[in-house]
Amino acid sequence: MQRFGNNGIEGDVPDVVIGRMPIYLRALVLLNSQDIKDVSSHQLGDLLGITPAQIRKDLSYFGRFGKQGKGYSVAHLSSAIREVLGVVPGVQWPVALVGVGSLGLALLGYPNFGREGFRIVEAFDVDPQQIGRTVSGLTIRPIHELNRVLGESQVRIAIVAVPASQAQQVVDQLVSAGVRSVLNYAPYSPRVPDDVRVSNIDPVLSLQAMTYFVKEDLV
Amino acid sequence: MQRFGNNGIEGDVPDVVIGRMPIYLRALVLLNSQDIKDVSSHQLGDLLGITPAQIRKDLSYFGRFGKQGKGYSVAHLSSAIREVLGVVPGVQWPVALVGVGSLGLALLGYPNFGREGFRIVEAFDVDPQQIGRTVSGLTIRPIHELNRVLGESQVRIAIVAVPASQAQQVVDQLVSAGVRSVLNYAPYSPRVPDDVRVSNIDPVLSLQAMTYFVKEDLV
Repeated sequence: MQRFGNNGIEGDVPDVVIGRMPIYLRALVLLNSQDIKDVSSHQLGDLLGITPAQIRKDLSYFGRFGKQGKGYSVAHLSSAIREVLGVVPGVQWPVALVGVGSLGLALLGYPNFGREGFRIVEAFDVDPQQIGRTVSGLTIRPIHELNRVLGESQVRIAIVAVPASQAQQVVDQLVSAGVRSVLNYAPYSPRVPDDVRVSNIDPVLSLQAMTYFVKEDLV
Repeated sequence: MQRFGNNGIEGDVPDVVIGRMPIYLRALVLLNSQDIKDVSSHQLGDLLGITPAQIRKDLSYFGRFGKQGKGYSVAHLSSAIREVLGVVPGVQWPVALVGVGSLGLALLGYPNFGREGFRIVEAFDVDPQQIGRTVSGLTIRPIHELNRVLGESQVRIAIVAVPASQAQQVVDQLVSAGVRSVLNYAPYSPRVPDDVRVSNIDPVLSLQAMTYFVKEDLV
């Protein structure tokens, strides 16, 4: 739960609701590209596999967007969600990347970060083979420079793509350099202070939940 | 919600509860490696940032695991969760990969799949430069072979690492070839029949939810 601050809206918004906002935004961007002007919570629900009631409830945390009988204005709702999230056209959030192995390299070249409001501005590694290399216009720095470089920067978001055994140490360094949100690809859940958020991306956890649903086919 | 079938437990288990089981399992494996024999829901909760009440409720779907005053046996609970999920030592679930760009290549080389019960057994791409190459012991096949190869196989799980514009078409092909669970890395939510599950892994959606929490620092 998080206290709403700087936009005139008061109240606790559950993290899971915040987590669905980018999904709504993406659907609205798609609808806009198809020249659709208005959308009902039912249509949005069909598109996303989320119940209309849930969508209405989620959006109600941030104000009254729907018009009776007409649904939501695609343009109005998407700009409202962009405001809420801080993902607005023309703003690129600076992001640091730690770990430039094969996954880190794939992330450095990922075109959607730029399109969606993010830019990797610093990359760090421990491997002497990687340090000093220039990839996607970025020179990879040794990890011992992390604290100084990020401490002097406005970077508050980092992506961690290091082995599990190094994840906690790297996250600790990031936090002490001022990072407040970590997207973690290491198969380990790092511990962080209460004011820091970690989002774990781990394909194994997703796959292991899937086997529950498919195992009856194979048993 | 999902009907429990083949293990004597009846009842609807919410997907979100299934989704937490691999997280519990990973914590238990860690505790076991530290020679810890018993763990309370409070200790597990501290480790994972999940409330003890939630942990007890989640586990209660599958039986009675705790011993009053002693907590859970690490060995017993982890083997019970393995059974529930179908993630048991010695079993490797065969997985197909579609899309062998930089992300797909990183996934092909990812050592944790093998350790955690999964093996990529087929890889497909449309790129003539990739087709026929052998990567991590696997020869990349043209996508037009997907239907025949998977139709003749026991593969029920697939990983999709193609651009957004191709995702729906690839998922449709996978579903018609018998795949029942899709781990989707494309920045697009594909539509699937009710009996197919999709788990979307999209770093942009995670990052966009993070900006909500850090934006006050920078405004």
